Parts: sequence; structure tokens; C-alpha cells
Amino acid sequence: MAPTRYLRSSASRDVNPDLDIERKTPSFDVEKLTTILDGGAENTRVRRAVEAVIHSDPVFSREDKYFLSQNESYEAAVKKAVHLKKMMHQMKWSWAGSECKYCNRALGGEVAFTLHNIFMESILALSTDEQTAKWIPLAENYRILGSYAQTELGHGTYIRGFETTATFNISTQEFVLNTPKISAMKWWPGDLGRSATHTVVFAQLYIKGKCYGVHPFIVQIRSLHDHSPAPGVTVGDIGPKMDFNHIDNGYLLLQDVRVPRENMLSRFCELHAFSSGLKAIVTEHSTAGVETCRKACGGHGYSLLSGLPSLYTRLAASCTYEGENTVLLLQTARFLVKCLGAARSGQPVPPSVAYLSAVNSERCLVRDKRDLLQPDVYVEAYRHVAIRVLSSAAAKLQALVQSGAEQHEAWHQCTVQLVHAAKAHCHYHVVKSFAEAVEKLGQEAGIQRIMKHLCGLFALHGIFSNTGDFLHDGYISGDQVDMMTASYLDLLAIVRKDAVPLVDAFDFTDETLNSALGSYDGHVYRRLYQWARKSPSNTKQANQVYENYLKPLFQNGLSKL
Amino acid sequence: MAPTRYLRSSASRDVNPDLDIERKTPSFDVEKLTTILDGGAENTRVRRAVEAVIHSDPVFSREDKYFLSQNESYEAAVKKAVHLKKMMHQMKWSWAGSECKYCNRALGGEVAFTLHNIFMESILALSTDEQTAKWIPLAENYRILGSYAQTELGHGTYIRGFETTATFNISTQEFVLNTPKISAMKWWPGDLGRSATHTVVFAQLYIKGKCYGVHPFIVQIRSLHDHSPAPGVTVGDIGPKMDFNHIDNGYLLLQDVRVPRENMLSRFCELHAFSSGLKAIVTEHSTAGVETCRKACGGHGYSLLSGLPSLYTRLAASCTYEGENTVLLLQTARFLVKCLGAARSGQPVPPSVAYLSAVNSERCLVRDKRDLLQPDVYVEAYRHVAIRVLSSAAAKLQALVQSGAEQHEAWHQCTVQLVHAAKAHCHYHVVKSFAEAVEKLGQEAGIQRIMKHLCGLFALHGIFSNTGDFLHDGYISGDQVDMMTASYLDLLAIVRKDAVPLVDAFDFTDETLNSALGSYDGHVYRRLYQWARKSPSNTKQANQVYENYLKPLFQNGLSKL
Repeated sequence: MAPTRYLRSSASRDVNPDLDIERKTPSFDVEKLTTILDGGAENTRVRRAVEAVIHSDPVFSREDKYFLSQNESYEAAVKKAVHLKKMMHQMKWSWAGSECKYCNRALGGEVAFTLHNIFMESILALSTDEQTAKWIPLAENYRILGSYAQTELGHGTYIRGFETTATFNISTQEFVLNTPKISAMKWWPGDLGRSATHTVVFAQLYIKGKCYGVHPFIVQIRSLHDHSPAPGVTVGDIGPKMDFNHIDNGYLLLQDVRVPRENMLSRFCELHAFSSGLKAIVTEHSTAGVETCRKACGGHGYSLLSGLPSLYTRLAASCTYEGENTVLLLQTARFLVKCLGAARSGQPVPPSVAYLSAVNSERCLVRDKRDLLQPDVYVEAYRHVAIRVLSSAAAKLQALVQSGAEQHEAWHQCTVQLVHAAKAHCHYHVVKSFAEAVEKLGQEAGIQRIMKHLCGLFALHGIFSNTGDFLHDGYISGDQVDMMTASYLDLLAIVRKDAVPLVDAFDFTDETLNSALGSYDGHVYRRLYQWARKSPSNTKQANQVYENYLKPLFQNGLSKL
Repeated sequence: MAPTRYLRSSASRDVNPDLDIERKTPSFDVEKLTTILDGGAENTRVRRAVEAVIHSDPVFSREDKYFLSQNESYEAAVKKAVHLKKMMHQMKWSWAGSECKYCNRALGGEVAFTLHNIFMESILALSTDEQTAKWIPLAENYRILGSYAQTELGHGTYIRGFETTATFNISTQEFVLNTPKISAMKWWPGDLGRSATHTVVFAQLYIKGKCYGVHPFIVQIRSLHDHSPAPGVTVGDIGPKMDFNHIDNGYLLLQDVRVPRENMLSRFCELHAFSSGLKAIVTEHSTAGVETCRKACGGHGYSLLSGLPSLYTRLAASCTYEGENTVLLLQTARFLVKCLGAARSGQPVPPSVAYLSAVNSERCLVRDKRDLLQPDVYVEAYRHVAIRVLSSAAAKLQALVQSGAEQHEAWHQCTVQLVHAAKAHCHYHVVKSFAEAVEKLGQEAGIQRIMKHLCGLFALHGIFSNTGDFLHDGYISGDQVDMMTASYLDLLAIVRKDAVPLVDAFDFTDETLNSALGSYDGHVYRRLYQWARKSPSNTKQANQVYENYLKPLFQNGLSKL
């Protein structure tokens, strides 16, 4: 371990003694693990330098985060964004560089104009050289502010269902954009509700009455002179959300909005089937994990000051945005069913599903609980389940089709099992990749040891939480489940000893976590009390309610009110 | 079905045609089910009469609920509470009567002074006749406002760990209350942060240096003259929370606060072991259920305007308050282990655990998927699992003790299995009680039929989600799991047809649900848009951010900022 750990906070090193003891004897080099997580020591250095700059600037303080209204959150995020752009310009940090990513981490993501980057990225990816030459310099120098308007009030993940139209007018060589009905209104785009001047609108392209499918168009939505809505544009904020209230997610209604021909972007490509399912299980696991941690903190985990509610409400969004999880899992399932058919008929399949071609093992042969911690053993168990669940879903699908059901209807009747199959596949893939990554840590014995424990814990936790999947066809027996449970509980005790050093290795600053409970010094009660006292509920016109309501009640009693 | 259904909202009867079709052919009498849920037609009548009064009074409007800051929420709840007390007084509705309960339902619980009732109830339950005669009239007429201060910053569910002290001073015949350290501060009590004048403080009683355990004391915390903190009292609000921001949960620090001898309440009794576990699984299931519904609404479920985030954040609190769920499940487990020992040695046990004395069946004999819908079959399966999991946990516990572990340490090592056993017991009990309740609906054939489907759905969903529990010792086979899954999916299709009438039967008004998605007329897009436009993010100084930050950015660009 490094002799002097990076000072994580402006607070002094007065640490809660219970926490101090936890840090005394880590089984591995914490600083080394930090650099591995960062992808190299140079990245760690850059990240810490960026964090030092951000945390020392009072404009970036997040002290009042938990006390802000939606309006105030938005204003704070815009203020920070403008200040950040200025600072990045001075420091010569590029918006596509690693410093920008670290700024975002240091600020806990609470900064406006994140969609402006997506706007630029989509232009770079989808436009011609002429389009790039026109729009990118304007955007880079903030002469315009961009957004990205895809989701509609009635249509999210199913892009082909979009109802916004762009009709080409041959005589004027313009596109005329319209929102034909309420469900076609653009709804949710970030930075659009109150900030953006331009946005990329996805619309069904019509030429001479014929529909050519969904295409992206650059549309100016607000005046560059006074920021008022452009002709034919109705735009506003969709109101308060479970979180992300610093972002002005917006609605957009278009009535005969004309854009020149050259504003149509030419290309269009949303996600690979496998990464879809992976996104779904990663967001599901992490959301559930945060909620478990929050509940484990008892009542204090319910206080916004703990930082845990906002971690939950933010991660919860990730189960829905960029593709709703169940829809994504069904995309993965469609890919898997196709690959299973190919594998069975001896055709080549992508490497991620090559395991479908192999013979499936019949039974786990382990007789000692320690053997269950061998990666070979648990990876094989996950592989077995992935093949079994997928085969079973595919068999049901085939039986339905053979009995005369329409393909679409048969698919619909199998969705519960298909989602199950996609999850089993992704879970297998994650466990296998985890085990392989641990294998590669050979030169760092201490880190490899603790990572092997964590990998075993992850794998056994998955079996423990889904024993039915493994017991179903007798691949493992009830006795083996009991052994596995014992191994799992043993691992908890082992990992427990390194729990604090493992968390330390992520190297989140106190300012980034912004939590009264999750702070380097561990003085949680003191901090909860200090932060509560600063709450506007104690300082802001706190007595007005007494004067207006309580005093008359106490003085008059009910009978005279 | 009643010819004219109670008009649920002030909105017109213009109903979304998709929803209208769903209501056309319910398989049961919806109005009849409503009266069953209310506990009788007279209750339904009273409830609707109360709702009509509440919803017609503009003071009780909850239209702006999703736009309020913590301060504004608190002020609105106090305003409503004072108005409600006045109205109840005029209508001669008692605070302990059913009208009061229905007022609370109509207002979605968003009203202050709910702890005032707990204050009165605790005095009625724990005090002498003299104490009741003194305090209840003061409280009933709002000459004082009460709260209930039990939880401390460092101690919640574990009551014996409280650190607040009450030392008896023999010469003055007073108790002197103190908060000896920061973790002893009272933390979380509702109505205490900004409202209450009095509270019931739980403290360790000391007489002549000897501790007599935790006792309750009535303590005045604010002046009845000007509402300032009483001498020695530091009191305030604990700040923003995941929800319940209309409630002024408070902190309380006591320094040599003297109360007369007669302020000590004499009795003390916070939960029965079985109801503990039941509370835990009911809150866990309902919280998970709401989150499933929220996610099923996609992005719109993330908008506060859907009402679903606040349903989640409120129910999430119930997993922690009034006893943290894991702690409660362990209390139930302790009771179960004791009862299992008694049952095995032939001693009498309470009726709720009489099943532990019976011989456990070895195997489920069902060969047809329809038989899995027989309540006898699934209740027996749950019973089998409850006995197996408890026996297994008890055996591990006994083995550890016999191998020399301390009782306390052995218990600690078995907590994962003990929680599992408590859940299995409670789950069995709920399924069994559900089946018995359906059995009693014999005179209402249509309602009994749909309720039997729902009971089967609940039971099979539980098996489907925990197949490992049932497969572990071969009580059911993999083939039976597949049959069960098929039955479960069949039931989904059957219940689906009555989904809207079932929801209608709960008879929640639009005003109570306060949701842009969950409304009687089903015009969800129209309502989302209307409500979003009313949001302060669109109306309140919306342009200030442009003037202050965006305009200078656009006009100057980065280089000149």
C-alpha cells in the first residue's frame, strides 16, 4: 500500500476509530487496485488532478443539493455547466477527452448541457462533411446549444412507432415537420425543456405521400436573439421527476416547422443484441444493490442527506432509459434463439454464443464445499443453466408454431421464459468474464486473491438467489445447494475483513459522494446533525407556519376557530 | 354490477375507449366487491360521503403536491390539518372514528399532526386515570400538540439500547432528562421538528444510581406562549427525506430538562412475534409490487406526475419504520425455533404454528397442471417448505451449539437461514389465510371465482419466484415446476380480463390517487401534458436562467466569457 493515501477530502484526518481499525490491515495494496480500476496510474493522476480543481472551486459546491427545488436544481446545473465550459476552455480540456469524463464524475453528474455533447456526437456520426463543417464549430463555441429529440409521449423503445412527420416539399426544397397528435409530441429529451436552441428530431420521412421510415433532422427550436420558441414550436419542461431534476427534460410540439433540405442527417444506426441484455442485467443488479445498501442503513438511509435515495432514484432510471430492460432482454432472446438454431444445425455462431454448440454436462460432481469455489465449477453450472433455460424456451416456441400459432403470437406467449433465458445467458457471460479477468491478475497476488473471493461471492450469490434454476433438472442436488450456501456464507466472512479497503479503492471523494453516511472519516452522526441543522426547514421562515396556523389553533382551541 | 357507478372524479365521463371496453364485461359485481373490501355497504357509504366533503373543499386540493419544496409541503400539511380539525369538530367526527380514517385516505395521508393521535393513544394506553384526565382534554382541544419520541440517532429498533436518561431527583420529586451523547439524540419523531409542544420521551430510568430500564415521560418541549424551545431543549427538523417531506420529523436534545414526577407514564408494552414477520413480508411484497408497476409504465412511471414514484418512496419507508424488516423477521424466527422445539417434545404450541406438530408430507403427487390450482395442493406445498426450511435452520443452530459455540454467536451465524425460515412461515400463513378467506365467499359466486384465481396467482407466483425452495428435497420435481409455470401463465391471461374491474373495485378517487396515469378516464397523455404545463419549471421565473447564464454564453461564446 502507498505510504500516504491520497487525501480524500478537505476534512481533517480525524477518523472514527472503528473505521480506522478496518483500514489497518488490508489484505491487498489498495492504491494498486485504484490504479487498476482507473485503467492505469496515469489515469488516476489525471482524475485526482481534475477532482482537486473541481472541489476547490466554490461554484462547483454541491453542499445544498438536497435542499433545492426543481427550478433551483436546474439553475445550479446551468450555472455549473457554464462555469465548467469556461474552465475547460482555459485549461484546454476537450469535451471528448478524459478530463471531461472526470469532471462529470467529480460533479456527481449534476451539470447541464450533457445532451449538447450527444448532439455533437450524433452530427459527427450521422452527417456529411458539409454538415459537420457547418454545425460543429457553432456548437463547440456555444453559439448554439443542442439536444437530441427521439422519444415521444406515446413511443419510447419502439422507434418504428414514432409518429412525428417530416414531409418533403419539392417546390421549396424544405422539410415540413409536424406533430400530428398528442402522443407524437417529443417527450423526455434532456436540455430541451428550457435550454436548447437546436435539437435533432427523429421523424417519419414522407416524399410524395410515401413513407421512407425514421430519419434525423436538425431543427432550430428557439430564437438565437431572445430565446423565444421558433415559429410553429411549442416547447417546455415535462415537470418534476423521481430524480434528474437538474435536467430540463422537455416536450416539443411542431406545427408546420420548416427546415432546409440540408438539415436532414443522412445516416442512422440505438444497440447490439448482446450488449442490450447486458445493460438490462447490470442496471437491474446495481439498482437492487443500492436499495439493499440503503435499507441496511435503516432510517438514516431514508434521509436524503445519506445520498442513498438519490443513488437509487438515479439508477432506477437506467432500467428504463436507453431501452426498457424487458424489451432489451427480449431482443437478446431473439438473437439467442436464432443462434441456438444455427448451432444445432452446425452453422457458425458468434464467439459469445459458441458455448451453445458444445455438449451440455449432466450433473455437477462436486462433493466438498471448497470445490464450489473453483471458477471452473461455477462457470460450468451457469453455462449448464443458460443452455437448459434457452433450450426449454425455444422448445416451447417451436411447439406453439408447430401447433399452428402465428410466429408473433407464439413469441408473445413465451416472453416470460424468453426473458428468463436472456438473463441466464447474460449472467453466465458476466460470471465467465469475471473469472477470466481475475485469472489475468496473476502478477498481483494480493489483489488476485481478494478478486477471486469477490468473483466467487458474485457467482455463489447468483446461485443462492436462484437455486431453482440449478436444481430444476438435477444438475445440482439439494445437498450441493446446502454446501454452496455454506461456502457462500464463509466467503461473506472473508470478504467482510476487506470491505472498507475495497470501498476505499474506488477512490470516490467525499465531495462526489456528498453523503452524511458515506464519508472517509466515518463520523456519521456528527455529520447528519450538522447537515440537518443547515436544512432550510430549520432556517428559512421556519416560524411563519407557527404564526399563521399553530398560534391561532393553540390560542383559540377548536371551539373558537 | 350497480347500474350507475359512483362518479369517481369531478372530471366528465369522457373515457378513453380502450379503457371503456375493459369495463364492459366484468366477470363479477364490482360494486359488491367494493363493499366487501370496505367491510360492508355502510362503510362504503360513509367513506364516499367523507370523500365528497374532502374533495369539494379547495383547501384540501393536492393539485400542486409534486411541485412543493420541503417547506411548502410542511406548510400545506399543517394548513390542511388545522382546517381538517375544524371541519371534524363541526361535523362531530371523532379522531378515533372511521370518518377520520377515511379523511386520511382521501387526503393521501398528506396531513400534519398524525403523531398527535399517537400521543393521545399512548396516554390512554399507558397512563393512570389522573394522567388521562389531565392530558387528554388539553390534547383533544389542541391546547397542546403532542408527538412521540422513541427512536434515537444511534438506536432504532433495539429499544434496550436507548441512551437518553431520566434521573429521579428525590429532593425535588422531579425527573431530570438528559441526552448524554450525540447518538442519544432523539431523531425521526414526526410532528416534532417544528410543530409539537409536548412529546412522550423514552428514556432509561435511574433512581439512586441504579438503572430501571426504558420508561416513557411526557416532556414539554416548546413554550405555549411563543413556541420557542423550552429551557434545556434543542429541537429542529432532520431535513429532507426520500418522501414524507410534509412531516416535520425532528431531532431533540435534552440538557437537564426537569419534569414533575407525575409525568412518568406507568406502563410500557411497540409487537407480537408473528405480526412482526407478517409486517416484514407484506411491506416487502407491496414495495416490490409498486416498483414493478412503476417500471412497467416505462419513462412515464419516472415522472412524479404519475404518482408512482411517491407510492414507492412511501412504501419503501414501511420496510424500515416500526421495526426494520430483517430485525422483525429474526424476532419471528426466534419464536418459531422455540415453538418447533416445543412441538417436537409434545408440548402445546399456539394455533398459528400448530402445523409444526403434524407429520410433513414427502412429495407432491400432482400429475395434471390444473390440479396445481387446487388450494389444498399449493397450501400443502407452502406448509412443506415452511417446515423444511425451519427444521434445517434449527438443526444448524443446534449443531453449532453442540459443537461449543455460544448461543448468541450460533444465532448470529444462522441469521441468513433464520430469516429464510421466518419468510417461509409467513408466506405459508398468508397463502393459507387467503385460501380460507376465498372459501368463505361462497354466497358470491362471481367474486369467489375471481378471488380464487387471484389466490392461485399469488400462490403460484410465490412458487415460480422461489422454485428452489420447493425443488430442494424433491417435494416437487422439475416437471411439476414446468406444469406450475404453465398454470401460472394461464392464470395471468384469465385475470388479465378482469384487471380493470378489479382495480376499480378498490374505488380510489382520482383526487386520492393524484396520478396523471392512474385516473378513471384513462386519458393519460392529455393529462400528463396538462399537468406538465402547470409545473413551476414552465411558469416560475423560467426565463431568469436564460438572462443570467445562457444569454451571455450565446452572445460571447467561450472565448470571450
